[in-house]
Amino acid sequence: MLTRIDHVGIACRNLEVTMAFYEATFGLTVVSRETNSEQGVQEAMLVVADAPAGQSYVQLLEPLGPDTPVGRFLERRGEGVHHVGYGVADIEAAMTAISTAGVRLLDSRPRHGSMGAAIAFLHPGDVGGVLTELVESAVR
Amino acid sequence: MLTRIDHVGIACRNLEVTMAFYEATFGLTVVSRETNSEQGVQEAMLVVADAPAGQSYVQLLEPLGPDTPVGRFLERRGEGVHHVGYGVADIEAAMTAISTAGVRLLDSRPRHGSMGAAIAFLHPGDVGGVLTELVESAVR
Repeated sequence: MLTRIDHVGIACRNLEVTMAFYEATFGLTVVSRETNSEQGVQEAMLVVADAPAGQSYVQLLEPLGPDTPVGRFLERRGEGVHHVGYGVADIEAAMTAISTAGVRLLDSRPRHGSMGAAIAFLHPGDVGGVLTELVESAVR
Repeated sequence: MLTRIDHVGIACRNLEVTMAFYEATFGLTVVSRETNSEQGVQEAMLVVADAPAGQSYVQLLEPLGPDTPVGRFLERRGEGVHHVGYGVADIEAAMTAISTAGVRLLDSRPRHGSMGAAIAFLHPGDVGGVLTELVESAVR
């Protein structure tokens, strides 16, 4: 069902500084910058690898304000890994299968993610404390 | 420098239960079980994808006791993402480059990781709160 680790989502306080750090230290390349008002973040995607089933990214997330999911995460936990996104070929089929397996979905239907992807989050309480995202890429 | 997201390392309280969950819910396959006394964990590697630069894994970690790095992590944070491992082609070259960039290494030289890999950890305080691991796979 899972085709790849699509991305690791990392919460940071300053997107510009953290982007520059990942570029300079690890040689990653920023391929997308977006503001997602619905999720309350501005974000950058930095490409790690180019695999047959799709690329893998480091996703850096800076909250648009303290009263957002990532803002509350930073307040509670500090900077660090916020979630893990896995690639799927068919997000609606994956959501149905995972829901049937007993995992609560935070999204009842796919919503808009980075770079035009269709995404859905799973309840971390049902996935061993890991906020888990399914990602069906727009470009395959 | 980074060739892929090698793995996401996830701390759990019960390896058997968490392995069974990932197998049943996400269709992942356990390809390795190891006890690493030096790191104080028993662990499983579940394969996610098969890419040219090497596979990606979910690594599940159960501490061998409370007074281990993962045991203390569970006590402090609960179950969840413990670290992120990135593939590199040449770990010694990567360690030198990253150290020169000003990031502290937790390991002064490569040590033994999962499945025969050579690994080194970077100080999370220098990588935006993310415990970051470099992985040079034994099989390329």
